[in-house]
Amino acid sequence: MTMGDDEGFELHPALAADCAVVGDLPLCRVLLMGDRNYPWVILVPRRPGLREIHELAPADLARFWGESTRLGRALMARFGGHKLNVAALGNVVPQLHVHHIVRFTGDPAWPRPVWGVMPVVPYADAERDARCAVLRELLGVGP
Amino acid sequence: MTMGDDEGFELHPALAADCAVVGDLPLCRVLLMGDRNYPWVILVPRRPGLREIHELAPADLARFWGESTRLGRALMARFGGHKLNVAALGNVVPQLHVHHIVRFTGDPAWPRPVWGVMPVVPYADAERDARCAVLRELLGVGP
Repeated sequence: MTMGDDEGFELHPALAADCAVVGDLPLCRVLLMGDRNYPWVILVPRRPGLREIHELAPADLARFWGESTRLGRALMARFGGHKLNVAALGNVVPQLHVHHIVRFTGDPAWPRPVWGVMPVVPYADAERDARCAVLRELLGVGP
Repeated sequence: MTMGDDEGFELHPALAADCAVVGDLPLCRVLLMGDRNYPWVILVPRRPGLREIHELAPADLARFWGESTRLGRALMARFGGHKLNVAALGNVVPQLHVHHIVRFTGDPAWPRPVWGVMPVVPYADAERDARCAVLRELLGVGP
């Protein structure tokens, strides 16, 4: 990856508003979704203008799935979930972003997909910061 | 891939009931979801016991994303959708299966994710067979 690959990337304002920034992996910005109903992490490849996974260049596609599987394993090991939901939807926010949501058989939306089911429950600031710190440690990324 | 890698794989009965089999790519069984509300294709890696994408062996992970991106590009080119939804949920049917759903700004669930929004609208037999034939041609797979 050359330094220039990030050029022109800006996080979509809707993602910036809804999420806390955990840090950057080599390809993706890592976000914590501001909803304490579920451990919910979003990966956003830092490339401008992307809408679909299949638009990633081949080397970035390999990076993306490397980062996604690493994140998925780490989340499931740390939070002990029953199922991971991985989804690239983007019907509302067009910038490519991929949800990784740890699901529990007792969570408020189970077994439905989470979108639109429960009202968002925001984190308290300290709880959000602590969760971001845990994620940084899991992924070995700086703030 | 050795021939033995498929050993022990059986399509989950719920997927077999809800979908038509399009054919097999080198890793995945390709299914057409029996809901004519959306062009909706499911990839199921033919490996026994998998529940999560991050459980795929490294070589299978690369195969999987190659097949997924090829399918995604082909679907979007053929059906002219506005957005592709790609999702591995599996809260109800545990066998790893990954949805690829072509979305249109005028489709019945837009912009919501499709699950649980609209009643399923079954294909007529001839329409389903024709769509499977189109998919086989797009992907170069036999029935």
